[in-house]
Amino acid sequence: MSQLFDRVAFIGIGLIGSSLARVMIRDKLAGEIVACARSDATLDTVKELKLADRVTHDPAEAAKGADLVVIATHLSAYAEIGRRIADVLKPGAIVTDVGSVKQAVVRALKPLLPSGVHLVPGHPVAGTEFSGPAAGFADMFRDRWCILTPTAGTDAKAIARVRQMWESAGMKVTTMDPEHHDMVLAITSHLPHLIAFTIVGTATDLEDTLKSEVIKFSAGGFRDFTRIAASDPVFWRDVFLANRDAVLAMLQRFTEDLTAMQRAIRYGEADTLERVLSRTRAIRKSIVDAKQA
Amino acid sequence: MSQLFDRVAFIGIGLIGSSLARVMIRDKLAGEIVACARSDATLDTVKELKLADRVTHDPAEAAKGADLVVIATHLSAYAEIGRRIADVLKPGAIVTDVGSVKQAVVRALKPLLPSGVHLVPGHPVAGTEFSGPAAGFADMFRDRWCILTPTAGTDAKAIARVRQMWESAGMKVTTMDPEHHDMVLAITSHLPHLIAFTIVGTATDLEDTLKSEVIKFSAGGFRDFTRIAASDPVFWRDVFLANRDAVLAMLQRFTEDLTAMQRAIRYGEADTLERVLSRTRAIRKSIVDAKQA
Repeated sequence: MSQLFDRVAFIGIGLIGSSLARVMIRDKLAGEIVACARSDATLDTVKELKLADRVTHDPAEAAKGADLVVIATHLSAYAEIGRRIADVLKPGAIVTDVGSVKQAVVRALKPLLPSGVHLVPGHPVAGTEFSGPAAGFADMFRDRWCILTPTAGTDAKAIARVRQMWESAGMKVTTMDPEHHDMVLAITSHLPHLIAFTIVGTATDLEDTLKSEVIKFSAGGFRDFTRIAASDPVFWRDVFLANRDAVLAMLQRFTEDLTAMQRAIRYGEADTLERVLSRTRAIRKSIVDAKQA
Repeated sequence: MSQLFDRVAFIGIGLIGSSLARVMIRDKLAGEIVACARSDATLDTVKELKLADRVTHDPAEAAKGADLVVIATHLSAYAEIGRRIADVLKPGAIVTDVGSVKQAVVRALKPLLPSGVHLVPGHPVAGTEFSGPAAGFADMFRDRWCILTPTAGTDAKAIARVRQMWESAGMKVTTMDPEHHDMVLAITSHLPHLIAFTIVGTATDLEDTLKSEVIKFSAGGFRDFTRIAASDPVFWRDVFLANRDAVLAMLQRFTEDLTAMQRAIRYGEADTLERVLSRTRAIRKSIVDAKQA
């Protein structure tokens, strides 16, 4: 892959941002990489790992003159970042992001960006339960999906360049309406995380005699939830709030189904339970067949 | 390890039973192994894999003359098996099991077994989402916990022999009150499975346009749930019904917590969300430290 951008600015460079920076370095996609983060610790790690040519605490300084600005912070920081970089963006610059919610991103950034700047929101569906630039790795994206949610009228060439970048990272790239994206991710990602955080929280509140044994005997299913629930709390707080409507809609469906299961258990309805429990193997098989397992 | 039992009978020999049989063969723990199952397919696989010296469809024929009877069927079959083997058990025989619920096992079997026969209920906390004797493997138990729940007055030598058997399989063995076992497993295993089955069921009911994309983008958390929810539906139906009281008690706590999260999301209570989401990393760390991750 040849160079795609003369200068790339990362605003926020944690698990996902740093993994993308590693791809850019590996594949020589960027002439220069500038990294911006709030904390000294993050920037020190970035320098140590040589993930950027320059570092700064100032989003405007990072974004100035960049061909591509990658916003990879928590979602709640987007609006402030948009305000701080809007005036310095050069004509023709592309602004993209890696956030897990897309309607909120469009709402936050689109009104702020000057005409002539291309907004191409993106969501690489990949990650681990770890955080920070030291936890990133270039292969994180391989064979996973990246969803781009450009709004109508977005410059096709800008979309194509962002697509090329993610393809270079090994991703399968697709485009989607932001609203549809948020609904799909509410069920595949946001609700599972909400539930995992909740059940691990429930266990945390158990009496001490029980709690120590929960840890000891976690092999039976619980430990998968604790892995999911070990993810960054601020990241997830922002996701749940930014995608509130879709998360609440899916949560409502889930609690209806859970209440039906609860009733079947209480009244010993073996047939109902077996029927419901049998349905789920098919979807697992589809996922295995789709090589997403 | 030297021979522990002259003759071992497996009543039921699926994922767990066949894995234990493999351990017994590897470590020469049994002079002879007799396997009993309802289906021809299971017994054919057992013969093909040489997991038993003899096979039969008749629990009484299998149990007759055995020093150790391992019940490894679904929980709902226990009472019927108890009735069928009670009269043929030899004095001094040990009856054990591998079931995931223990109060129900004691209730089902203890009244049926003649005096002089030792009941040592057991639960090796290990497994995969696969089923049947072909899916078993001897290393399944390595470094995992096995919980024995003998009732007061059970012969100490009988308990020690069952313990030796599981230690030979590589397990850490502990004893526990059956009631306490059922509460611990309700939160570490039964509730996580109930929730995983439910959310995968919720996804199954989505409109088709959404459902195909749930499969495509499952990498974001959902696929861990589908793996859990791919487990044997009849097995889990029986677990939920056999451990009804503890499962309903833990489910009640969980739904209270989930409702609180739902409310915090609806009203945009960022501080509440962050506080709850931050608590869960500690328990994950404990599990990693306890080497159960």
